Amino acid sequence: MASTPKIYVAIVGVGLVGSEFINQLLSIPSSPFHLVSLTSTTRTIFNHSHPISSAWKSDLSASADRPDLHKLTQQLSALVSPTQKVALIDNTSSEDVAALYPTWLSTGISVITPNKKAFSSDVALYDQIVAASRTGGRFLNEATVGAGLPVIGTLKDLVTTGDKRSFGVKMRARSCSLFVPVVATSGGDSHAQQVIKIEGVFSGTMSYIFNEFSTGKADGPAFSSVVKIAREKGYTEPHPADDLNGFDVARKLTILSRIIASPSLPKLQSFASVETASLIPPALENIPTGDEFIARLPEFDAHFAEMRAAASAAGQVLRFVGVVDVVNGRVRAGLEKYPTTHPFATSLGGSDNIIMFHTERYGARPLIVQGAGAGAAVTAMGVLGDLLKLT
Amino acid sequence: MASTPKIYVAIVGVGLVGSEFINQLLSIPSSPFHLVSLTSTTRTIFNHSHPISSAWKSDLSASADRPDLHKLTQQLSALVSPTQKVALIDNTSSEDVAALYPTWLSTGISVITPNKKAFSSDVALYDQIVAASRTGGRFLNEATVGAGLPVIGTLKDLVTTGDKRSFGVKMRARSCSLFVPVVATSGGDSHAQQVIKIEGVFSGTMSYIFNEFSTGKADGPAFSSVVKIAREKGYTEPHPADDLNGFDVARKLTILSRIIASPSLPKLQSFASVETASLIPPALENIPTGDEFIARLPEFDAHFAEMRAAASAAGQVLRFVGVVDVVNGRVRAGLEKYPTTHPFATSLGGSDNIIMFHTERYGARPLIVQGAGAGAAVTAMGVLGDLLKLT
Repeated sequence: MASTPKIYVAIVGVGLVGSEFINQLLSIPSSPFHLVSLTSTTRTIFNHSHPISSAWKSDLSASADRPDLHKLTQQLSALVSPTQKVALIDNTSSEDVAALYPTWLSTGISVITPNKKAFSSDVALYDQIVAASRTGGRFLNEATVGAGLPVIGTLKDLVTTGDKRSFGVKMRARSCSLFVPVVATSGGDSHAQQVIKIEGVFSGTMSYIFNEFSTGKADGPAFSSVVKIAREKGYTEPHPADDLNGFDVARKLTILSRIIASPSLPKLQSFASVETASLIPPALENIPTGDEFIARLPEFDAHFAEMRAAASAAGQVLRFVGVVDVVNGRVRAGLEKYPTTHPFATSLGGSDNIIMFHTERYGARPLIVQGAGAGAAVTAMGVLGDLLKLT
Repeated sequence: MASTPKIYVAIVGVGLVGSEFINQLLSIPSSPFHLVSLTSTTRTIFNHSHPISSAWKSDLSASADRPDLHKLTQQLSALVSPTQKVALIDNTSSEDVAALYPTWLSTGISVITPNKKAFSSDVALYDQIVAASRTGGRFLNEATVGAGLPVIGTLKDLVTTGDKRSFGVKMRARSCSLFVPVVATSGGDSHAQQVIKIEGVFSGTMSYIFNEFSTGKADGPAFSSVVKIAREKGYTEPHPADDLNGFDVARKLTILSRIIASPSLPKLQSFASVETASLIPPALENIPTGDEFIARLPEFDAHFAEMRAAASAAGQVLRFVGVVDVVNGRVRAGLEKYPTTHPFATSLGGSDNIIMFHTERYGARPLIVQGAGAGAAVTAMGVLGDLLKLT
C-alpha cells in the first residue's frame, strides 16, 4: 500500500500522437514511470538502466538499432516480475503491432493504445487479447474511441455496475422521476441489459463535414466544396474516401459492442460486419487518388443537396452517426436525420464528437459526453490517462 | 498479476443510496468483493467469515449490536494486510463519519463515498485525508459531483496529464484546428494550467427549477409555483432553502477546486469561502419550516419574473451555475445569464447536470459531460464504479 515501484514504459510509434505522448509523459512531476524504449519505423532504442529523457529525438536518430519487435518482447518480458510492471504503448495504427498484443499480455506486459485495429478486426484476435489479459498484463484502450473523452471508461462503468434488470414498462415509469430512487432487485433476467443504446457522432471528420453542410436550412455550401475544404484543413485523410466509407465509425462501434458483449447484439466477426452505409458514390468506389476523387465529387452534389433539402423541409439536419442498438440487436453506421432541436444539431460544432448513452438508470434523458474526439494532444492525453491507471 | 484476492467491503449508511448500492454490489457476477459489515443509524453487523447476502435487511434488523464506528475501525484494520484490501463505503451525508476518514486511510482502509462533507468542509480535514492517503488506503469520491457522471475522473485525468504550458495566444491559435496537433514543449511555467475554467449546472434541483422557470420567453410560471412543484415531486430538500442557498453547488466547486489545486485559485478554507449568491430572499433567511417558506415565497415572484423578462429581452435564459475560473482565480456559485443558443439553454432538460471543462487541449470548444446528476441508482453506480477501481 506504500510507495509504488517505478513502472517501465516502452513506446512503439513516435509520429504525431507518439511525440505528443512522450512530451506529456516526460512532463509529469515526480513521475512513477521509467521510459526504457522507443521504436520508430526505422530505429529503436532500449536502455533500462538510463531512462530516456527529453533529448529522445536526437537519441533515437543517433541509434544504430533497427526496429525489432520480437527482440523488444524479450527485453521487456525480462523486466516483468511480480513486483515490477511493464507497459507497452502502441502509438501506431499498425495491424502488425496489434497482432503482438496477445504475446505481450501473456508475458505480463500491459498494453495501452489508441490503435483501433486489435479491437475492431478479426474477433479471434480480440478473443485472444481478452483471454491473455485474464492472467497476464492489462489492456487499456480509452483513446480508441473519442480520443481523450471518457467514453470507454464510462461504458465499462455502466456495464460492470449493470444490474441486469429487465426493462420495458419499468423504464418508461422511471423516465420522468430522476430524483425518485428505484431500488434495484438483484437477480432477474440475465439477458436484460443496463445499456439500451449508444448513439453518437464518432468521427471528427464526419462531424465537421455535416456541421458545415447541414445546418437545418434548405440550402448551403455544396457537399464537394465542404469535403474539399476539410481536406485542405487536414481534417480528412489524404484520400477522403478513407473517411467517407464510414469504416472509422464501424471500427469504433465494434469496440463498443464488444465491451457491451450483450447476447442480443450480433457477435461481430470484424468491423466489416457492422451495417455501414458508405457515403462514397458507387461511381467513385475505386478512384485511386484523393485529388481525382475531389475532382469528380461535384458530379454528386445535387444528390446530397436533395437530401439536405428534404431533411430541412422536415425540420431536420443530416448527421453521420454510429448506433449500437442493444434492444434491437443492431450495430449500424450511416447518415441519419435529427430534428434541429436535437443535441446533434444544437450542441455540436467544429469537429466535435458527441456520444449519448441511453441506459436503464439514466432513463429517458441520456448520459452525454461531448468534445474534441481527434487530434494528437487529446489522443495522447487519453493514452496517458490509461497509463496512470496502472499506478 | 494473476487472480486478485477478495476485497473486504464495509458499508456505513443503508438509506436510499446505501440500499441501492448494496443491491448493485450483490448483483455483480463472480464478485471480487466480500461484504463484511453494514451499519445503519440504529444497528450494525460485522461478519468476516460469512459474507452478507441478499437477506441483508432482515439480518441487519435482527442484529442486537448498536453502531460503533470506533469498534468497526478496529475490526476492519485487523483485516488489512499487504495482500488484503479493505474498503469502507460511506453512504451517509454525515460530518461525523467524514471526520474518521484520516483514521481509516492511515490504517490502510480505502474510503469510497458520495458524501461531500469531508472534501468540502474545513481544509484541515481535507489535508489530513490527502496526507493519510499518500501512505495508506485510497480515497475515491466520483459520486460527490454529478453522481455517476464521469466528472471527478475526467478532471483528474485532465490535471494529471496537464502539460503546464502557458496559454493565451497559443490557445487562440489552436481553437479552430482540432485536427492539427500542437506538439507540447515540456517544462515551462509551472503556474500555468491545463484547466482554464469549469462551468456547469451542478445541482439537479436548481437545474429543474430554472429549466422550468426560464425558457427564453418573457413570461412563464411563477418562481414560487415552480419551487412548490419541485418540492412536491421530491426534487428539493424538505426545506427548499437548503437548495436555494447554493451551498450544495459551493461544496461541489470546493471539491473540484481542491483537485485542480492551482496556485492561481484561492485556497478555500471551506465551501463557505466560495462566492455564493444565495437565491433566498433576505426577508426569508430564517424561516424555520419548509411549509412556511413556500407560503411566503410568492411575495418575491415579481422580483424573479423581472429578472426573467430582462434576460429574455436580451435573448438569454437564467441558470444557477457554478464556476471554477482558474485564470481569474475565482470560485463562484450563482444565477447567471446564457444565450438561448448556449448548451445550458438548448441541451439541458429535466434535472440534468451539465459540466463544461474549458482546457488548453480542448481549446475553444469545451469537453462536456451531461446527464442525471442525482438519484439513488446513478449515485450508487458512481460509488460502485469507484469500488471496481480497487480491483
